[in-house]
Amino acid sequence: MNDQLIIFDTTLRDGEQSPGASMTRDEKLRIARQLERMKVNVIEAGFAAASNGDFEAVKAVAEAIRESTVCSLARANENDIRRAGEAIRPAASGRIHTFIATSPIHMEKKLRMTPDQVVEQAVRAIGWAKEYTDDIEFSAEDAGRSEIDFLCRIFEAVIKAGATTINVPDTVGYNVPEQFAETIRRLIERVPGSDKVVWSVHCHNDLGLAVANSLAAVRAGARQVECTVNGLGERAGNASLEEIVMAVRTRKDVFQCDTRVDTTQIVPASKLVSGITGFPVQPNKAIVGANAFAHESGIHQDGVLKHRETYEIMRAEDVGWSTNKLVMGKHSGRNAFRSRLQELGVDIASEEQLNHAFARFKELADKKHEIFDEDLQALMSDESSEPKEYFRLLSSSFHSETGEIPCARVTLAVGGAEAKAESCGSGPVDAAFKAIEVVAKSGTELLLYSVNAITTGTDAQGEVTVRLSKDGRVVNGQGADTDIIVASAKAYLNALNKIQAGAEKMNPQV
Amino acid sequence: MNDQLIIFDTTLRDGEQSPGASMTRDEKLRIARQLERMKVNVIEAGFAAASNGDFEAVKAVAEAIRESTVCSLARANENDIRRAGEAIRPAASGRIHTFIATSPIHMEKKLRMTPDQVVEQAVRAIGWAKEYTDDIEFSAEDAGRSEIDFLCRIFEAVIKAGATTINVPDTVGYNVPEQFAETIRRLIERVPGSDKVVWSVHCHNDLGLAVANSLAAVRAGARQVECTVNGLGERAGNASLEEIVMAVRTRKDVFQCDTRVDTTQIVPASKLVSGITGFPVQPNKAIVGANAFAHESGIHQDGVLKHRETYEIMRAEDVGWSTNKLVMGKHSGRNAFRSRLQELGVDIASEEQLNHAFARFKELADKKHEIFDEDLQALMSDESSEPKEYFRLLSSSFHSETGEIPCARVTLAVGGAEAKAESCGSGPVDAAFKAIEVVAKSGTELLLYSVNAITTGTDAQGEVTVRLSKDGRVVNGQGADTDIIVASAKAYLNALNKIQAGAEKMNPQV
Repeated sequence: MNDQLIIFDTTLRDGEQSPGASMTRDEKLRIARQLERMKVNVIEAGFAAASNGDFEAVKAVAEAIRESTVCSLARANENDIRRAGEAIRPAASGRIHTFIATSPIHMEKKLRMTPDQVVEQAVRAIGWAKEYTDDIEFSAEDAGRSEIDFLCRIFEAVIKAGATTINVPDTVGYNVPEQFAETIRRLIERVPGSDKVVWSVHCHNDLGLAVANSLAAVRAGARQVECTVNGLGERAGNASLEEIVMAVRTRKDVFQCDTRVDTTQIVPASKLVSGITGFPVQPNKAIVGANAFAHESGIHQDGVLKHRETYEIMRAEDVGWSTNKLVMGKHSGRNAFRSRLQELGVDIASEEQLNHAFARFKELADKKHEIFDEDLQALMSDESSEPKEYFRLLSSSFHSETGEIPCARVTLAVGGAEAKAESCGSGPVDAAFKAIEVVAKSGTELLLYSVNAITTGTDAQGEVTVRLSKDGRVVNGQGADTDIIVASAKAYLNALNKIQAGAEKMNPQV
Repeated sequence: MNDQLIIFDTTLRDGEQSPGASMTRDEKLRIARQLERMKVNVIEAGFAAASNGDFEAVKAVAEAIRESTVCSLARANENDIRRAGEAIRPAASGRIHTFIATSPIHMEKKLRMTPDQVVEQAVRAIGWAKEYTDDIEFSAEDAGRSEIDFLCRIFEAVIKAGATTINVPDTVGYNVPEQFAETIRRLIERVPGSDKVVWSVHCHNDLGLAVANSLAAVRAGARQVECTVNGLGERAGNASLEEIVMAVRTRKDVFQCDTRVDTTQIVPASKLVSGITGFPVQPNKAIVGANAFAHESGIHQDGVLKHRETYEIMRAEDVGWSTNKLVMGKHSGRNAFRSRLQELGVDIASEEQLNHAFARFKELADKKHEIFDEDLQALMSDESSEPKEYFRLLSSSFHSETGEIPCARVTLAVGGAEAKAESCGSGPVDAAFKAIEVVAKSGTELLLYSVNAITTGTDAQGEVTVRLSKDGRVVNGQGADTDIIVASAKAYLNALNKIQAGAEKMNPQV
């Protein structure tokens, strides 16, 4: 049996479908570049037919990425597949991933199609896809609740039609490992032509079993796992890329296969995705949580750790944990700044962008003694976050005192013009948001507000995430500054800019 | 086979061993009461021999809890077991949980004992424990890497000596489900007397498989699972209580057993533990994550959710998710306040405490229009957080303005006296912390700073968590206020008070 396990990352498609995790084209590009650096095999960049924005994002990723296959999702209809095919055309290696529901409940209630019609539609879809690429993946939506005989029938048909990867999703996260493995084993045994395709799984985490189900399937013969960085995804998310990769690597004895992933890029990828989506990673998350490799100090006392292997099965440095590196200070020059950014994998579009970023770096260095890699990443993230900045913070002042009502004044650039406003509130952040609303009148609702210090130490920058909702749409805004109120105002304006720029889209369930 | 699965919660012992998650006696009591309300079978309240503080905490839980068994951990030596026995004496139902390492690497490098000596010591330990209770659990530390023949031998010996529960931990999280299940199956088959005891598992999550390994063991015959709320625990944590309970409940068809847990108490327990430890729950965490039951709005568009069961395998209300309930406003009276607190399970120690809390509630209601359950919980958490408040914030003022350096002034109560200080900083929070340090001169290092809004809306209270380290000790402080700078100062002082009150302790690895 083939001993290569294909890692299919869907952070940019299924991950992005999490409420509040939607990404701009530039954010998707930054994550895609990190995925390429990590050497994932396939990057599902989006669902091209969902909106023009999604189409452009998939196309941009297809243009930028050379070392990974770039994939677009498409329902099994001609329009979706043609949009996907157009979007992946610039890719060095492009894949179309088409799907249709196969469970009785979905066929009846959602598709309103007979089983015969579903098979026919699936085969037609493969035909359209073949006009664009030979790399075609077919998914049976809600396979976990589909009848095995029908799955065999539709898979046989699409393999004959030219599908090269067959994906079995557990869309609602209902399966348990032994059972799911048994399903995969039977499918591989029964479907004619099963040896000519790669079998893939896509598991959801509603019962906390996405990784375990995926790994059980690998033992049963699956050779592609669909997963996301940090396990991002709708509801309880997808299988975590980092857990899949490290389980297989650490227990090669059991799984008899391995991935080509460069595991030292795992933690940087986790931080990038968490920063862009504003979804924190809990400290006790496997592999990428802040405590994953930290032991409470007590146990060191009786010398237990004299022998490292007593409690360690993986090494922190193998997954990309390294101590904060002091890279820069106020005396660092422009060249050192540029080359450090390049080492961090940050792309600088133009000399003008570099000059602007360097000026902001100098500003930050005045306020903060030690500038870490994380600070540079936050700075560049701030820098590139939005192409169309309709609202921008020019200056601000805040005052709060025990016994008085906190007040804020802000001066904003609003589509070129300048506007001033002031307001009081229940705290300085509330006052700042209210002052901004005096100008913006957005009518949004604040769903979430959170702050994380980017590095340790009291002079650390705060990175604020603000989640706003308007008319059912949810966006996240981020802002970083050593002043938490300023960071909050920036995050709020960033979210308003996204609402200003946004477009409708739809999200498929696979 | 018995169809009751025993839930053994170790949030207060293994969970508390997470770096930064240490809890005060009062915090442990609040969590224990919630665990009792949730109807877990066994509460492991701590490791009584670790320190006087731990002993007192276990004893306090044993005194307060009537409906769950209260357990203390103890190494297999006389002193540890006598301390555990004394601590659980007040319990309605008490258990001693003793352990010794059984893997070659641990016996040789850590214990420096021969296998014969280890068996002998284990049997002696059961003897001491029997002087205090008939409910005795024995764990083979690092069983996952122990030889099966030796496990059979030591388990047979401790069962003969009187152990009633046999626990098989995967201490370093190295196992995979099929393999771990096979180990459990073989142990139950081979160990004489295995039908007279409850078989238990304790899995760590280093490869993301703690829940899957535990569930695989249940299918192999284990009838106790050791787990923690939110999967808290050292490194990547333990098996998540909520995932274990809901997997078994949702898939009774597969697991052929069930727990007695009241699942509607799961989300309140998760929030309580997350609030006390300051460990956030990531939005895509199964069951208790904010997105676990949230669908991105897009999919509603094409009417997919006409039939609820299309995408839902559990109901949000079954695990205790409910919309924020508006309970209080500025016109709410003292009786309404008291009875709402009682409904929330908050214990009010005295009329004086109630009066003080009610005064603070009125203060909050002046600043914030709508007071939710979460606000009341934060208020009471603030109220009861520390018995010995050496440092307290009396008043403060902050100012920040674009182009100027942010400054803060604070007035503190310090052990009865009053002290004023001011400082500038890189932001107002930094300035506040530095002003406090002018007085406190603690010499601590700030490891983590995070803020979460307690409810939605711009006038929400911010709940700040500050993690400080001094001489290798790590403490968390919390503070809540509608003013984020005030909340930050309170959190910082709360952490300093814990350092002031703290004592050394050690943490075993099971």
